[in-house]
Amino acid sequence: MSHNSFGHLFRVTTWGESHGPALGCVVDGCPPGLTLTEAEIQVWLDKRRPGQGKFVTQRQEPDAVKILSGVFADERTAGQVTTGTPISLMIENVDQRSRDYSEIARAFRPGHADYAYFAKYGVRDYRGGGRQSARETAARVAAGAVARKILEGVSIRGAVVQIGPHAADPARFDWDETLNNPFWCPDATMVSVWEQHLEKIRKAGSSTGAVVCVEATGVPAGWGAPIYGKLDAELAAALMSINASKGVEIGAGFAAAAFSGEENADEMRPGNDGPVFLSNKAGGVLGGISTGQAVTARVAFKPTSSILSPRQSVNEDGEAIELRTKGRHDPCVGIRAVPVVEAMTACVLADAFLRHRGQTGGGAFSPGSSVRR
Amino acid sequence: MSHNSFGHLFRVTTWGESHGPALGCVVDGCPPGLTLTEAEIQVWLDKRRPGQGKFVTQRQEPDAVKILSGVFADERTAGQVTTGTPISLMIENVDQRSRDYSEIARAFRPGHADYAYFAKYGVRDYRGGGRQSARETAARVAAGAVARKILEGVSIRGAVVQIGPHAADPARFDWDETLNNPFWCPDATMVSVWEQHLEKIRKAGSSTGAVVCVEATGVPAGWGAPIYGKLDAELAAALMSINASKGVEIGAGFAAAAFSGEENADEMRPGNDGPVFLSNKAGGVLGGISTGQAVTARVAFKPTSSILSPRQSVNEDGEAIELRTKGRHDPCVGIRAVPVVEAMTACVLADAFLRHRGQTGGGAFSPGSSVRR
Amino acid sequence: MSHNSFGHLFRVTTWGESHGPALGCVVDGCPPGLTLTEAEIQVWLDKRRPGQGKFVTQRQEPDAVKILSGVFADERTAGQVTTGTPISLMIENVDQRSRDYSEIARAFRPGHADYAYFAKYGVRDYRGGGRQSARETAARVAAGAVARKILEGVSIRGAVVQIGPHAADPARFDWDETLNNPFWCPDATMVSVWEQHLEKIRKAGSSTGAVVCVEATGVPAGWGAPIYGKLDAELAAALMSINASKGVEIGAGFAAAAFSGEENADEMRPGNDGPVFLSNKAGGVLGGISTGQAVTARVAFKPTSSILSPRQSVNEDGEAIELRTKGRHDPCVGIRAVPVVEAMTACVLADAFLRHRGQTGGGAFSPGSSVRR
Amino acid sequence: MSHNSFGHLFRVTTWGESHGPALGCVVDGCPPGLTLTEAEIQVWLDKRRPGQGKFVTQRQEPDAVKILSGVFADERTAGQVTTGTPISLMIENVDQRSRDYSEIARAFRPGHADYAYFAKYGVRDYRGGGRQSARETAARVAAGAVARKILEGVSIRGAVVQIGPHAADPARFDWDETLNNPFWCPDATMVSVWEQHLEKIRKAGSSTGAVVCVEATGVPAGWGAPIYGKLDAELAAALMSINASKGVEIGAGFAAAAFSGEENADEMRPGNDGPVFLSNKAGGVLGGISTGQAVTARVAFKPTSSILSPRQSVNEDGEAIELRTKGRHDPCVGIRAVPVVEAMTACVLADAFLRHRGQTGGGAFSPGSSVRR
Repeated sequence: MSHNSFGHLFRVTTWGESHGPALGCVVDGCPPGLTLTEAEIQVWLDKRRPGQGKFVTQRQEPDAVKILSGVFADERTAGQVTTGTPISLMIENVDQRSRDYSEIARAFRPGHADYAYFAKYGVRDYRGGGRQSARETAARVAAGAVARKILEGVSIRGAVVQIGPHAADPARFDWDETLNNPFWCPDATMVSVWEQHLEKIRKAGSSTGAVVCVEATGVPAGWGAPIYGKLDAELAAALMSINASKGVEIGAGFAAAAFSGEENADEMRPGNDGPVFLSNKAGGVLGGISTGQAVTARVAFKPTSSILSPRQSVNEDGEAIELRTKGRHDPCVGIRAVPVVEAMTACVLADAFLRHRGQTGGGAFSPGSSVRR
Repeated sequence: MSHNSFGHLFRVTTWGESHGPALGCVVDGCPPGLTLTEAEIQVWLDKRRPGQGKFVTQRQEPDAVKILSGVFADERTAGQVTTGTPISLMIENVDQRSRDYSEIARAFRPGHADYAYFAKYGVRDYRGGGRQSARETAARVAAGAVARKILEGVSIRGAVVQIGPHAADPARFDWDETLNNPFWCPDATMVSVWEQHLEKIRKAGSSTGAVVCVEATGVPAGWGAPIYGKLDAELAAALMSINASKGVEIGAGFAAAAFSGEENADEMRPGNDGPVFLSNKAGGVLGGISTGQAVTARVAFKPTSSILSPRQSVNEDGEAIELRTKGRHDPCVGIRAVPVVEAMTACVLADAFLRHRGQTGGGAFSPGSSVRR
Repeated sequence: MSHNSFGHLFRVTTWGESHGPALGCVVDGCPPGLTLTEAEIQVWLDKRRPGQGKFVTQRQEPDAVKILSGVFADERTAGQVTTGTPISLMIENVDQRSRDYSEIARAFRPGHADYAYFAKYGVRDYRGGGRQSARETAARVAAGAVARKILEGVSIRGAVVQIGPHAADPARFDWDETLNNPFWCPDATMVSVWEQHLEKIRKAGSSTGAVVCVEATGVPAGWGAPIYGKLDAELAAALMSINASKGVEIGAGFAAAAFSGEENADEMRPGNDGPVFLSNKAGGVLGGISTGQAVTARVAFKPTSSILSPRQSVNEDGEAIELRTKGRHDPCVGIRAVPVVEAMTACVLADAFLRHRGQTGGGAFSPGSSVRR
Repeated sequence: MSHNSFGHLFRVTTWGESHGPALGCVVDGCPPGLTLTEAEIQVWLDKRRPGQGKFVTQRQEPDAVKILSGVFADERTAGQVTTGTPISLMIENVDQRSRDYSEIARAFRPGHADYAYFAKYGVRDYRGGGRQSARETAARVAAGAVARKILEGVSIRGAVVQIGPHAADPARFDWDETLNNPFWCPDATMVSVWEQHLEKIRKAGSSTGAVVCVEATGVPAGWGAPIYGKLDAELAAALMSINASKGVEIGAGFAAAAFSGEENADEMRPGNDGPVFLSNKAGGVLGGISTGQAVTARVAFKPTSSILSPRQSVNEDGEAIELRTKGRHDPCVGIRAVPVVEAMTACVLADAFLRHRGQTGGGAFSPGSSVRR
């Protein structure tokens, strides 16, 4: 990871501010010959798009993606396919509602990165948060759509498992249910609780945190690498880099701290296609390498920092001020983070796959066999 | 982070297996002119060294570090100083106790990376876990000692805040207390509880997880960078790359998910040296950039996977087996992880400092001033 | 350097094909607070722009650059300035003259990368050469314009010193003269020779090679780093990455092979500002580090591969064919390479400057002084 | 390439000074399962080893390599094999002949990097040149030996084609002849000329430059990548990073500048295994991608800077001095550079192979076929 790029062989560089003309990314290292259209990317952007309910920001952005390079179609290709050269994706900013920024132009909003940007750079685009804006995540989602094309056989999906103090019940976890409500909530009984909680928060001009989980199934054994290229270390970096993320767990995560060794070690039995694990405390990763189980992670998101209650702060002149943040904001950024968490997971896995194939030729050894497959 | 390297301008590459002749690291990009002796590195290695109590592995390793390159002394230098060229550090393996590995040579120990390594590489050094062994962390601690030399004015210290189900009381947190007990426990009332818990576990041939916290004070505002070079994202990767780590939190971490926006946003008041924050839920990082507050993180460690109770598993031939792991093992790897967590934090901060200085010239803007200082 | 990116702290990623909707680059790591407008970048693009004379391609492209991100202006900034976030630059392709590509769609043009792309990727955008097109160098020139803003006090200029067999006379080398003719030729007596040579070649539908030299003055001592980050090694990579480049020399280059040690070693005398060198065989770099002398390099360009004479070749079906390359082509790509060579030199130097500042704090030691300045 | 590392998936980091206890490298990313013994590496080090004739330095170093990690052997492996983890190679410095460095400790030897190191770092290990010493290339040769194991089917060999003003005749080029003389000279008639030239130079305490060529056969089409990861750009960086290198050519190199397009474009005819090229002006690389032809390059080496004739210089106090460099030196470093040039070529190719396999799965498309092979 360098400042605005991540990944190694599958490498994504994002650019753009909230209120500039556009934002986007360059996806370098994509294998050639994969079908890729704007519509296929748009599906995922639409999932992330704001303006889809009263609990997400009311900014109206079509978030229409354009592919500017890296694909080609003629009568010999299977439709439009990747060429192996950089894929440049651009999303124009449309709804940069004209407003007066004089109140926040010199003020440091608590919980936002305003002061940190000021201290580091001395200059900052304060309109809509500039580069700090969660709009940057649209570029990640677009890149993630490309990554998914590489990950044949891998399925990645996310859910919100906690909003504020209200956690979904793991015993009632149902992936299908996540498609039935606007919260990606897997626990049908929790939907109305969250709805009421969010309504109360919205009315109060407040906000709330959330926990998002992600699961990637179909990841074969052997991806990732010791020691610093560990699959879980790269996943941790990718997920912690998402706006408002404050914590990442792999598998059992912090709960593992309370476990005994007997509880924690996932036992194995022989299977047709490698070992069958009797549990998945590890979250599909051991020693930084995938085991063939589902890769699972959880991410904690802090509440949106923009709230209506006045908070004490400081401005660029060093004066004490009181500040309340008006504008169009999600009361719970965690909800819209779901497709972003999925996208980052997809990018990490795509990169791990290509690097694994580079070093080893790909595939994995299975017990009882002497050849890689 | 590539496979066995981390950092960008301050870049560490580690090598070595548990039962090879030696292990070590190459530290590239260190600024010139810093005093550096083997004794100064040894201090930190001694803190990590096994064989120091009944609750850590009984393997007896002096872990004596040798500096093979990158330093120079003559009558004009202030003692032995770094030259800006790569610092090669080597620790010879001494206590590679001769034993019979026939039982585990073809077996996959549950919770260990044995199967993952086998699947990926087809061949693995099973003696003492080979490259998976926690002995690799000695090289990290050595690198961290170099990083600390760069971080003038920054103080980094860690503590164990939970062992198994027994968490230290935050209200009784006392850094001085961590030096009074073998667990780096900051809560004096918890020491005997942990002692009894570990004694029970040790006798049962079992193991337990733990949570380690780390705090870096004296970090000025401005280090780190959006978007993927975020200080907290790099910290997450560094801490998740430590053996047995399963979760990382920055600041309030997962607790932030339950917060309201009012609870979460750290308010600011004018101070002499930049804003004074009234709380530190952010853990010293906003938008991926340090704010001048203490940088705080927590890491969850799973229990040692080596336990005496027989566990179901599979071997390289695909046969069902039962396995119990004998040998010299820590019942709680989290304890010995403290200096490793500190070292990784130091390495991340040193790299962030150098990159910040590269891009901006260093220093930070303060409210009310128009010059970087 | 990864596939489509170069540089470390100052990192450029380019994208785009000859006949796609646009091409461009993302410049990451630029220091904040530098004034930067589209007009300032356009100056350099206009220097590279095709359609400026009968000896360069007649494709008519305005090559108008747009800054999509990374700059900001309000009443407090000194005009529009960089913010330290990624600068996205885009150049739309306008003159993608509609033509029939059926003749070359399946053919491998000798000297072009057609076959190599086919072999590697299996699919390729053959329109105008796709990603192989020299149009990609427009993005480099745009990035170089940003790099120049960082390099205060450094002056970079290039010249053509040989076209075909006709070399400029070093004794008549005059930088001012390069601005008086369409060839960037520093030797006034050579201009008419080249003119006649190129006219003959153009009429014959042939092409010719060239040698370009570049000089950067004002580079202080201390930039670059042993061993693989050598300033000259990075310059070599950057210049060899330009389309049609086949050789790179630093300082005396290949001539140094015939020198004796006495001839080669640049002697030094004390100066006010570090040593004064009595010659510059080294090209301003020793041990990979700048010495304060002018950094000088030369680059060999092969003749344009597109020629009217039929050449033997093969097509995608493996059939023997004869091929002649029609279209709008420079008879001598070396001429238009001058601003590209300058731009790559600027990018390498900007990156070296930032990395030097990162590791050491910047500046250099002078003989007779004990402080860095 | 960062400061002391090169390569991406196959990544080499070297460390060590001329007069420190040892030097070495860490080779990361090597595929698992390749047989690798110290003896196999030693073969190449012996080829580079000083003290083998009167025209190379008389320093007596056994240059015995030790493998410290990354390999494993048991009854199931085919001898000692790589495990996919970092291979740490160490060569102890034995003949650090005790001498008095007071004369050069504060002096800047002309042509050496003494002043550049001083300006950059302020401190330097002046004993034997410290990190600038050509002894560092032993680590490259060791890494190259590992790279060769990856490059099954690829043959890499180098020759000296010019010493001082005396160039070998391309028409008499005979690879077999390079093994019959101490100069790796491919032209039997040139051997005595070089012998006399070098004898004269040695007696005069002078030195001379040289040109080395390298050829890699068996490289399949498809390795390397546009635009900045071009195979020739990476080769240029690798070869320019060798001590005393001042120029790199690929294929026809600078001669191509004088060519017409007709002369330069290598024509193709159908072959059984891809196109057959009728010439190789390109040096086996088009658009940065290998074509299946031999990859060829030439490197210019300046004369050894250490000579007995007094030269004017400056010391650290800024005083004018005269300096002559005594000690054990090669009169022509180009001779001993041959195995280093080969090794760097091997490392670049190994990395290109692994990255190609990562992005595409490996292999290449052939005309007339629709599958990668």
